[in-house]
Amino acid sequence: MTLLANERIDQLSQFDREIIQSDDTFSLSTDALFLAYFARVRKTKKQKIVDFCSGNGAIPLILSAMTQSPIEAIEIQPELADMARRSVALNHLEDQITIHTGNIKSATSLVKPESVNVITCNPPYFKVYPDSWINPNDKKALARHEIAMTLEDIFKQGKALLKDRGRLVLVHRPERLTEMIQAGLKYRLIPKRLRFVHPKADKPANTLLIDFMKNGQEKGLQVLPPLYVYTKDNVYTEEVKAYLH
Amino acid sequence: MTLLANERIDQLSQFDREIIQSDDTFSLSTDALFLAYFARVRKTKKQKIVDFCSGNGAIPLILSAMTQSPIEAIEIQPELADMARRSVALNHLEDQITIHTGNIKSATSLVKPESVNVITCNPPYFKVYPDSWINPNDKKALARHEIAMTLEDIFKQGKALLKDRGRLVLVHRPERLTEMIQAGLKYRLIPKRLRFVHPKADKPANTLLIDFMKNGQEKGLQVLPPLYVYTKDNVYTEEVKAYLH
Repeated sequence: MTLLANERIDQLSQFDREIIQSDDTFSLSTDALFLAYFARVRKTKKQKIVDFCSGNGAIPLILSAMTQSPIEAIEIQPELADMARRSVALNHLEDQITIHTGNIKSATSLVKPESVNVITCNPPYFKVYPDSWINPNDKKALARHEIAMTLEDIFKQGKALLKDRGRLVLVHRPERLTEMIQAGLKYRLIPKRLRFVHPKADKPANTLLIDFMKNGQEKGLQVLPPLYVYTKDNVYTEEVKAYLH
Repeated sequence: MTLLANERIDQLSQFDREIIQSDDTFSLSTDALFLAYFARVRKTKKQKIVDFCSGNGAIPLILSAMTQSPIEAIEIQPELADMARRSVALNHLEDQITIHTGNIKSATSLVKPESVNVITCNPPYFKVYPDSWINPNDKKALARHEIAMTLEDIFKQGKALLKDRGRLVLVHRPERLTEMIQAGLKYRLIPKRLRFVHPKADKPANTLLIDFMKNGQEKGLQVLPPLYVYTKDNVYTEEVKAYLH
């Protein structure tokens, strides 16, 4: 296993996985972890899962501990896709996880249309406005800002890849909820489950988890109990501890 | 003060108000109470507030304890509008509260267009489907089911009455969130604040509170900490106790 400069191997011991990370790029966050749990993938081998905007492959690695189904990941940055491939090899998961280097806007050239049961996505959170200040040399910018794709692309490509009743499961910022619902309706992806993540019980949500169903009925959105990250004493809540250990 | 058959006077002592209610019609619920608090009306005299689907006038009566601004209410059922008017008289609030009998679909013939700062609405929650079973003789049906108006009418009429940056504040069911956002976007009413009400901390939300701003920017939806109604020991939470007493 070759590690490049500034790379390290982190343990995901609760999943019996290891992951290559680097200080130069976007690292695994609790958001990815929350998304993997929220996605509720089936243990069966018979599903097909795709992870959009996969970064260093954290979500496929975690999901591989939850399901036997094949997982394909799409990541635009070659360095990150390469890092993800080496993590897959490190965990001997080549038979289960395939990492594609590419833009999700070309997803249908990488993955067969209308073949996917679940798409997960922990996308760039920030819209690019004409006055947005973005450092073009910062590799993290592509992971944070909608430079290479937009929120709408996720829904457009999601619709193209998903089977009927397939699910697109996202982690995002609450302030983008309106746009997500708008884009979902445009592509017949109907929100069915919604969960907000609050840093603490008395703080506004800073993250949301949302599950859209392709061609789902508009009736029946479920808003789950919230997820709190920290207790009032600034330690992880029991739920987050259970996810981390 | 004349009370009709089956009517009674209930105390809203926390607001120093009394309200006429009847077992034959829809009575004040905690939803109305939560909405009144969530609306955060200003104390000033200078706002104009309208309550759609006002029933027996619970929301105007509660709001009158929170603001000096004039409040107009629209209620389609003559018996309920009459009950509301008698409650207004009982509390000597004729100078502050005006009750209109009418359908909100004709709101612009009752209230001057583009003159309103805040519209509150605790509407019928249930859509009428071709297979919906509704008792046409039940006076409560009009308050529960979208027989006389639809969710979209609230947004259409809301847009017509509100000033630029005016707010439409609703209490509704979480399963209607997608439709509300869709209707809001259609009429340039942008969701800015959202709060979910859960019966208990570990249960899905059964109610939501949502605040739309006319011609608001799409950035900046705030998802507030949730409101729990009961503790795990089945008593009201401190927040709900504070609202009730």
